[in-house]
Amino acid sequence: MRNGSGPTTSSKYARSSRGVDDAVKCRVCRGRAVIAVRRHNAGFCKDHFIAHIHRQVERTISDYGMFGHGERLLLGVSGGKDSLALWEILTVLGHEVDGVYLHLGIGDYSSDGLRFSQEFAARRELSLEVVDLEGEHGFSVPQASEVTARVACSACGLSKRYLLNEVAFRRGYDVLVVGHNLDDEAAVLWGNVLRWQVDYLSRQRPVLPASEEGLLRKVKPLVRVAERETAAYAVLRGIDYEIEECPMASGNTINRNKEWLNLMEERSPGLKAQFLFGFLDRGAAYFPPNPPDLAMCGECGQPTPGELCAFCRLKKATVVRIADRRSL
Amino acid sequence: MRNGSGPTTSSKYARSSRGVDDAVKCRVCRGRAVIAVRRHNAGFCKDHFIAHIHRQVERTISDYGMFGHGERLLLGVSGGKDSLALWEILTVLGHEVDGVYLHLGIGDYSSDGLRFSQEFAARRELSLEVVDLEGEHGFSVPQASEVTARVACSACGLSKRYLLNEVAFRRGYDVLVVGHNLDDEAAVLWGNVLRWQVDYLSRQRPVLPASEEGLLRKVKPLVRVAERETAAYAVLRGIDYEIEECPMASGNTINRNKEWLNLMEERSPGLKAQFLFGFLDRGAAYFPPNPPDLAMCGECGQPTPGELCAFCRLKKATVVRIADRRSL
Repeated sequence: MRNGSGPTTSSKYARSSRGVDDAVKCRVCRGRAVIAVRRHNAGFCKDHFIAHIHRQVERTISDYGMFGHGERLLLGVSGGKDSLALWEILTVLGHEVDGVYLHLGIGDYSSDGLRFSQEFAARRELSLEVVDLEGEHGFSVPQASEVTARVACSACGLSKRYLLNEVAFRRGYDVLVVGHNLDDEAAVLWGNVLRWQVDYLSRQRPVLPASEEGLLRKVKPLVRVAERETAAYAVLRGIDYEIEECPMASGNTINRNKEWLNLMEERSPGLKAQFLFGFLDRGAAYFPPNPPDLAMCGECGQPTPGELCAFCRLKKATVVRIADRRSL
Repeated sequence: MRNGSGPTTSSKYARSSRGVDDAVKCRVCRGRAVIAVRRHNAGFCKDHFIAHIHRQVERTISDYGMFGHGERLLLGVSGGKDSLALWEILTVLGHEVDGVYLHLGIGDYSSDGLRFSQEFAARRELSLEVVDLEGEHGFSVPQASEVTARVACSACGLSKRYLLNEVAFRRGYDVLVVGHNLDDEAAVLWGNVLRWQVDYLSRQRPVLPASEEGLLRKVKPLVRVAERETAAYAVLRGIDYEIEECPMASGNTINRNKEWLNLMEERSPGLKAQFLFGFLDRGAAYFPPNPPDLAMCGECGQPTPGELCAFCRLKKATVVRIADRRSL
């Protein structure tokens, strides 16, 4: 894979953001550019790139009616570039945003992510809550994956969606904010279209509305910002973030789809944005939201289409089997 | 591009169909396979591959209710592997199919295609009509493309759709048959999804119904057969066909999309079929047919949503400019 087409570490991002051809000028001030954004056919100097990103996110929040000033926002923070960049951006834009870190028990990856998140929050005097999956629920994501023979990313995604909503609901927040960027959303859309998973297409939106049964409104303010741009933003703002990708996710479907999209983007700059926003602007209306009837989970009280929510089922299956193993 | 991932000539197809690992056995008789079809995880000997293709096409005709025995079928024939293989298959299946060759004036490509089509028809005593674009309408596709500065494939596609329907209608056929294969349909779908061209998604079906205004029912019996399989079928049945691709189409969007899909298919056998049939089985219902109101073209009487059909507009523009040039 060529440089710039699919970098996965901060050093690569930094290189791609610093290694811009000297001839590229900032679109705004004509000074030397530090980053070229090919799909906008534009270069930016440091200050104007940062301003550009702020404007992109502000416009996204406004265009999709994500939230207003005064609403209580809780951001899911992983310690990676996207969530920390988003926390910074939203704070600069004047929103009050608390963070929550989900400790999923994935070895150094989790403890490093926690450290980066805590350092970020401490330096900016922001409030970070930590939810410890193992401490509070008795199992980690690797354990759940192993003992239930479930794909790790599936057990993890399910746990994250549950825990984020649960804590946001319990603490009385208005809106749940997540750091999914343009590449994430395009790769998920891609996978859903390749298999025509029409139920998922109905749910792929930058704003998922709240439900009466206790699902919070969930918003994705970074959908207009590409992965290499959140990385460049973090580097340029001096944000220290977790460079490593999750060791359990390497080679998963979304990452494979990202690689394909990066190869195609390399050949046709703007393809990812065209694909994602073509869907949101024209395609999505053909897949109207089709929310299931929700009830309260008999175990935890969180909304679920069944009697027991998927998280409580996962927890039960995992904890029982961990106990079985210990008793052997 | 690796061998097998995107062959474009008959010799490559032949190699890939003949160069099968000796260990691969025919799924049916356990004899030595001449072709491996990875998406079906199956090998076939010559006879059982041919029977497999016949069955695939028969099933496609039946599943989509394309036509019945006794209906008068007109097949658009280019002299390439797909249309000649389809002519052979339909004849073997007991359908009476006449062919029509559209001579579009694309140099040796057109005259060679005509020759292969005529030889095929003569040897099997099938009826082939020839429509000569330049002789009957006063211009060729290269001229239309040049003088109107229109992309050649666009002028060509428009002319082919028009001429096929016009001749089938005039001659009183019931059904218009075209040789689009799985790769063609998947690549077109792909392009339409990348740009979310929702009007085109409403029209992408293996059967397009007839309209009262004179559009014939149009069917694509090869949608379940991949390009390398039609090529292998043609080679194994001893069909001589035009190997060269259209010189005006090289590098066009559909061919580029085919290359991407071939790379992905190489990695995930079955991906193209999953994508296309996922759409037809689940996605297409979300994009219901939305046919425009049609009237009769004021010039030629063929159905059109406007006053003058697109072909007559193209013809007018081209012929006028050719005359202008001659008078200079």
